[in-house]
Amino acid sequence: MQVLVYGAGQLAQMMYLDGAALGINVMAVDVNNNTVVHPVSKSPLDCTLEQAIELADALTVEFEHVPETLLEQAQASGKLYPGIEAILVGADRVREKQLLSGLDIPNCPYQIVDDLAQLDECVARLGERLIIKASRDGYDGYGQWRLKAASDLPALKTQLANLDLQAVPLVVEKMLNFDREVSLIGARSKSGEVVVYPLAENLHHEGQLHVSVAPATNSTEALTEQACDIFTKLVNGMDYVGVLAVELFQCGDELLVNELAPRVHNSGHWSQAGSPTSQFENNLRAVLDLPLGLAVNTGGEASVSAMINIIGCDDHKLALLGIGGTHLHWYGKTVRPKRKMGHINVTASDYAALGEKLSALAGYLSLEHFPQLQEEAARLAASN
Amino acid sequence: MQVLVYGAGQLAQMMYLDGAALGINVMAVDVNNNTVVHPVSKSPLDCTLEQAIELADALTVEFEHVPETLLEQAQASGKLYPGIEAILVGADRVREKQLLSGLDIPNCPYQIVDDLAQLDECVARLGERLIIKASRDGYDGYGQWRLKAASDLPALKTQLANLDLQAVPLVVEKMLNFDREVSLIGARSKSGEVVVYPLAENLHHEGQLHVSVAPATNSTEALTEQACDIFTKLVNGMDYVGVLAVELFQCGDELLVNELAPRVHNSGHWSQAGSPTSQFENNLRAVLDLPLGLAVNTGGEASVSAMINIIGCDDHKLALLGIGGTHLHWYGKTVRPKRKMGHINVTASDYAALGEKLSALAGYLSLEHFPQLQEEAARLAASN
Repeated sequence: MQVLVYGAGQLAQMMYLDGAALGINVMAVDVNNNTVVHPVSKSPLDCTLEQAIELADALTVEFEHVPETLLEQAQASGKLYPGIEAILVGADRVREKQLLSGLDIPNCPYQIVDDLAQLDECVARLGERLIIKASRDGYDGYGQWRLKAASDLPALKTQLANLDLQAVPLVVEKMLNFDREVSLIGARSKSGEVVVYPLAENLHHEGQLHVSVAPATNSTEALTEQACDIFTKLVNGMDYVGVLAVELFQCGDELLVNELAPRVHNSGHWSQAGSPTSQFENNLRAVLDLPLGLAVNTGGEASVSAMINIIGCDDHKLALLGIGGTHLHWYGKTVRPKRKMGHINVTASDYAALGEKLSALAGYLSLEHFPQLQEEAARLAASN
Repeated sequence: MQVLVYGAGQLAQMMYLDGAALGINVMAVDVNNNTVVHPVSKSPLDCTLEQAIELADALTVEFEHVPETLLEQAQASGKLYPGIEAILVGADRVREKQLLSGLDIPNCPYQIVDDLAQLDECVARLGERLIIKASRDGYDGYGQWRLKAASDLPALKTQLANLDLQAVPLVVEKMLNFDREVSLIGARSKSGEVVVYPLAENLHHEGQLHVSVAPATNSTEALTEQACDIFTKLVNGMDYVGVLAVELFQCGDELLVNELAPRVHNSGHWSQAGSPTSQFENNLRAVLDLPLGLAVNTGGEASVSAMINIIGCDDHKLALLGIGGTHLHWYGKTVRPKRKMGHINVTASDYAALGEKLSALAGYLSLEHFPQLQEEAARLAASN
C-alpha cells in the first residue's frame, strides 16, 4: 500500500516510519516545489506528483496550509483524507467557527469582523478583554493581537488599519480565564470507526507547545466523556477521515474548543511510547480503511506519558536515554530559533514517577530552551 | 550518527526504522555483492563499502554467516560490535561449544568428531540417541542428522561418508528430553552496561520459529535468575557488545544453552510492542555506547506478548489489525516456501486474554502456514 502525504516535515517522517513497519510505503510532497520526496532523507523520488497521486491508495496532509491548487488536485483524485473541506476548516478560523457553531459545539464566544468599526460592537458584546486573530495564518506576521482595555481600542484600530479585512476577516474572541489547555486526538476511519486517545494537558510558551502530559491530570470521567462527545460530533458532522486534533480550553468543568488541526498533532506524539498504537499508525490505518488500533495509555510502565519538545537547540546530552522509559525522536533538521528539532517521550507507572523522570531529564538539557520543564516536573512529582 | 549493518534483510530494516526515529542513520551491506543499500528500499546508496565503513560510528551484523573476508575488513576498522570472535562463535558450533565449556556454562553434553570412527565413542559416552550437527551451516544441505538407536550407526556412517570432517567437524550431542525451548535476549553496551529481556518461550516447526511468548509462562524467579547469570557470564566472558540471543532448553528446573546468535533475534521481535525499548533500539544503543533502555514487559495492556511469524505466505487478512494490541510487521519480500515474510506482535493484559487474541487471530490466517497457533492459543487461554 502507498500513502502520499502533503508536507515533508517531521510528521510525514513519523508516518513513514510507522508505515514502513506495516508494509505501507509513505511518500511526501514538498509543497514548495511540488516534488515527491522520501520522508526521511528528503531526496526526490523518481516520480512526478501526478504519478504519485495515481500510485497512492490514499492522500493525506501533515499541515493545513497546503496551497489550495494542490488540495484541489488531490481532492479530484477521490483519495484525499481528510477531504479538502476539513483541511480548509483547519486553515481558516472563519470556517472553523462556522463549523463549531453549526454543530453546536462549545467554543469561545466570538464575532467575525470584516470592518474595523465592528470592533466597538465586539467590546460591547464580548467585553473589553479580547483576542483578535487573523482568520488565516501567515497574513501579517504572527496575526494575533490582544485588547486588554476598551481605552486601548483606538490604538489597536490604528495598528490594524492596513489589513484587508474583506479578503482576510478577523475572528475576535472573548479572552477567557481558562484553567488549562488540553487536547483531544482521535481518528475516524473510512468505515466510520472512531477511536479517541486520552486527553493530553499542554503547556505552551510564546505560542509554542513545550510539554504535553497524557492522560491529563485530574481527568474525571465526566471530562473524558465530554471530550469524546465533542470529538464524535465533530468527526461525524464533518464526515471526517483520518486523525483530527482538537485543542480545548478547560474552564471549570467545561471544555471549549479553541482550534482544530486536521492531522496528526504535536500534542499526540506521546502516543508513540505511551499507547499501543501511535497517532501516526492510526492515521494511516484510518485513511487506508484498516481497523483502528487501541488508543489508550498502555498501562504498567507506560501508565502516564510526557512529551517534551526540543525547540531551537541541539545540545541535549544523549545520556538522557539512561532514564528508563525515555525515547528521543530527532527530526534531522538544522537548528534555527523557535524551530522544533525533535521531541522526547517519557513514560512512567504514575505521575509522581513521571515527575521524577522529568526532573532527571532537566539535568541533560539546556534549560533556557525548556522553560516549562522543571515546574511541570515538580507539579507531577507532587501528584498521585 | 551512522551505523552500518552487514546483511540487508528484515533485521537491518527494523534497526533502520528504530534508528531513524533517534536520528541514527542505519545503512546495510548486501553481502552478496558488497554494495551498501538502503535497509528498507534495498536501493544502492551512493557510497562504496569502504566509504560507508569510514563514515560509520559503529558496524554490526544481522546474521552470523557474513563472509570472513568482510568481517576481517570490518574488524580492522576497530568499530565492529560485536567483534569478529563473537560473530564466528555464532557461525561455528565447535567454537561455540568451546566457549560454553570454557565459561563453565551448562549446555548439552557433546563430543566433537573429526573422524567417523569417533561416533562409536560418542554412543558409548552420550548414549545411542544423538543429534549430529555440521559445525558450520550450509555445508551439506541442512546439516543435521539424528541417531535413534545404536543399530542405525552403520547406516549413518555411510550417509556421512562423503563429508570432509577435517575441514568441518561434527558436533555430536546427546538427545535431551527437554521440557521446552526458551530464549534469552539481552544487550551489553560498550561501557559494559547489561540489560536482559524476560525469557521468551519458543515454538518451532520443521526447524523454524513459529511463535514466541514473553515472558515465558511459569517463569519462576529462580529460572529468571539462572538465565540472567548465564547471560552475564557470556557477555562479560566474551567482552561482548550489542544484542546477544541465547537459545536454551529447559529440562526441569535447569537451563542448558543450545545455541548463541550474536545479533538481534526473531524470538526478541515481541519487544517492539511489548517492551519500552525494542531489541533493535537496544542493539543500536549498545554499539553506539548510549545508555540502554528498559528491557521489561511494559505491563498494563502489554503485560504479556506473543510474536507469530508469517512464513511462506502473504494471504493474511488485514482485518486482523482490529484485534486490540495487534501489530503487523511486513518485510516487503516476494513469497517463497519457508521464507519469513513478516510477523505479528500481539500484546495483552494477561495470558488468558493473549490466548483469546491469538484464537481470534487464527480467523484471519491460512492455518496450514501457522501450525502452532491454535494449540498455543488454547494453552494460553487456559492459563492465568
